[in-house]
Amino acid sequence: MTETTIETDFTHDPDAKSWVESANGHPAFPVQNLPLGIFSPKDGGARGGIAIGDMILDLADIAGLLELEAATAARLAGQSTLNDLLDRGADSLRALRQGVFKLLTDDDKKTAVEPALHKAKDCKLHVPVTVGDYTDFYSGIHHAENIGALFRPDNPLLPNYKYVPIGYHGRSSSIRLSGVDVKRPSGQKKPPEDGAQPPFGPSARLDYELEMAIWVGKGNALGHPIPIGEAEEHIAGISILNDWSARDIQAWEYQPLGPFLAKNFHSSISPWIVTIDALAPFRTAQPARPEGDPKPLDYLFDERDQATGAFGITMEVFIATEKMRQDGDEPHRLSTGPMTAMYWTAAQLVAHHSVGGCNLRSGDLLGTGTLTSGDEGGEGSLIELTEGGKKSITLPNGETRTFLEDGDEVIITAFAEKDGFARIGLGECRAVITG
Amino acid sequence: MTETTIETDFTHDPDAKSWVESANGHPAFPVQNLPLGIFSPKDGGARGGIAIGDMILDLADIAGLLELEAATAARLAGQSTLNDLLDRGADSLRALRQGVFKLLTDDDKKTAVEPALHKAKDCKLHVPVTVGDYTDFYSGIHHAENIGALFRPDNPLLPNYKYVPIGYHGRSSSIRLSGVDVKRPSGQKKPPEDGAQPPFGPSARLDYELEMAIWVGKGNALGHPIPIGEAEEHIAGISILNDWSARDIQAWEYQPLGPFLAKNFHSSISPWIVTIDALAPFRTAQPARPEGDPKPLDYLFDERDQATGAFGITMEVFIATEKMRQDGDEPHRLSTGPMTAMYWTAAQLVAHHSVGGCNLRSGDLLGTGTLTSGDEGGEGSLIELTEGGKKSITLPNGETRTFLEDGDEVIITAFAEKDGFARIGLGECRAVITG
Repeated sequence: MTETTIETDFTHDPDAKSWVESANGHPAFPVQNLPLGIFSPKDGGARGGIAIGDMILDLADIAGLLELEAATAARLAGQSTLNDLLDRGADSLRALRQGVFKLLTDDDKKTAVEPALHKAKDCKLHVPVTVGDYTDFYSGIHHAENIGALFRPDNPLLPNYKYVPIGYHGRSSSIRLSGVDVKRPSGQKKPPEDGAQPPFGPSARLDYELEMAIWVGKGNALGHPIPIGEAEEHIAGISILNDWSARDIQAWEYQPLGPFLAKNFHSSISPWIVTIDALAPFRTAQPARPEGDPKPLDYLFDERDQATGAFGITMEVFIATEKMRQDGDEPHRLSTGPMTAMYWTAAQLVAHHSVGGCNLRSGDLLGTGTLTSGDEGGEGSLIELTEGGKKSITLPNGETRTFLEDGDEVIITAFAEKDGFARIGLGECRAVITG
Repeated sequence: MTETTIETDFTHDPDAKSWVESANGHPAFPVQNLPLGIFSPKDGGARGGIAIGDMILDLADIAGLLELEAATAARLAGQSTLNDLLDRGADSLRALRQGVFKLLTDDDKKTAVEPALHKAKDCKLHVPVTVGDYTDFYSGIHHAENIGALFRPDNPLLPNYKYVPIGYHGRSSSIRLSGVDVKRPSGQKKPPEDGAQPPFGPSARLDYELEMAIWVGKGNALGHPIPIGEAEEHIAGISILNDWSARDIQAWEYQPLGPFLAKNFHSSISPWIVTIDALAPFRTAQPARPEGDPKPLDYLFDERDQATGAFGITMEVFIATEKMRQDGDEPHRLSTGPMTAMYWTAAQLVAHHSVGGCNLRSGDLLGTGTLTSGDEGGEGSLIELTEGGKKSITLPNGETRTFLEDGDEVIITAFAEKDGFARIGLGECRAVITG
């Protein structure tokens, strides 16, 4: 139970300090966060690590200083992906978190642990898991309303929306880490008139999608659905996701089977998996599911959700055009909004995904779908900000945009903060568009 | 190119005989076929093999009897999946095929090769590759017309159909080998009236889908589309695919992003990959793309397609109910039709999939979509055979079906035959429905 965890778990103590000095007051990676990732130090191969301040801790290297399950988990993290560690489940991740927290806050351990720390700026980061399957949901209700309104002004939400956590299968091969350039895709676009040949060429309506990535921890066997009450035990943690979209390609191809080439050319994720345990203090109610809406069907209903089903994470999207970067301008914030824009909880997404028997595997990626806050300035994509491309945005330096141009960099950041707890960050997910 | 291959390639000689006697006249696996798979012998782990008559040849075991590229390929096949072998590309698969053909047709090699042969009935077969991503296309135009007519009687084919090879991403985690039982999924179904709560329970409209599986061989890098003229070099071969579908779940969930839980509970594939080279004699024109239809866009156009773009494979679907199996009745044939019902060629599917930059990886699975012949008796699914479930089918023993019932077994087989060549088979893809 989450509530108990916060009260009794010493890893949430806001006054805890680490002997890794850069961690104390770090906006993203204080000792209360301890996110998991895969890194290569300057002189070695890929392995599992934890971000602490400006440093990365090599987990396998300190396994000998840990006990029991924490030691086992740290050893599993010594591989080039975190799949085996995540598959070991929530209890194992918790043991590892608690063990590492003790090492990093105990001055007597400094001498033993310090050799396992690497300066983050000297390391290369990698996609933290082998993603077996990638599913993208559509849980941002305000985004669904905005997009629906572009197609069906009178009836933006389809009748299934408040019953079915709508989702579709994405492409796992083209998931890349934050920082990898995104090549603008070419494709067919809707012909100017019915029956004419569709034009072909580079997408002229390239967009970002502000999403969060939910990582599957322990998997389930085919034919064995995950009950809603156990769903969170199958979630390892959360990262930032940008599901780049070519709106013109999508508009022509998507019927009747959904988006395909409009999405599968690239998806970007942030490097660090912030664990469910690290996020426990920031659990909150689900404002996106208002009173009076239908009660979820039994397989999606958990009475705890009304109080603590959602994560109080704030997301921000910035743009830095090529000119802005050359001129040394700060990135310009396009929007900000909370992860609570999800109509369905992460646990509901897991329970729904598996209810027909589909098996999830550790390292599977569940995208939340674009998260738009419902308030002005909270649009999660350019197609919303520009009302379908009809209205352009003017940036502080006078440049204008309707969709992304070559050289544009999009930067998404996210963090959680709350009185009485240390602020933690999810890092950033950024990429530059190339022609 | 293909025509040259048939004339000069000794592996298509219809008079060739093997010293493996069960291969000669075998309906599926004569020496002219040599399909690739993964098997475990009675006393060993999973490894690559070739089906020959009633036997399976352990490839790594005979690598020492092969030369150069064929030897390298055979060694790569010694792993528990064929991904690395397929990634080596079409030339490597051809060298392996020719080398194995020589060994199996040369009586002088019998003594050396025989220890590497295992009786197929004593072996366990496995999914031959790790499927990174599974894409299901919708290339069966008569199926698209039939399904479209159920929803839109006046306008069954959407305007994009003859320009865009419509496809969507499927679920790779739930792909299972022929023979693995299929558990009937539960899920939400459309409410009886607008605004009512959707009912939840086991699918009452469980269906099969008659498809062929196209296996990706050599992959491409992200951002580097595969030109149509090179697309076939990225195809390793073909198997049989049954993309089980829950029509009632699909009808409620599929808008606006396409099918999800209705498909992702299970997909069945046949064990053997019949290589593109083995199918060369059966290349044929594309009857499903009639004169007067729009010319494919440049990135999909290959002038060779009109003569040889399609594969002359015949498919058959059978049902054996539990009662039929208990009574010893033969399976009842529900339909038969040719793979030439594809509106797009396999090469066009590859070129389209990658045109926006999406990277394919060796072992990726491309489903053709349901293949319906367009003639009566050629329906590739029960929803077509029963006109949307309105008309039931009477089986020879008097049982009736609209959709599949628990205990039903569905068996799909496929073969290619042509005057002047040895008939080759693709084996079978079968599974029993359980409750």
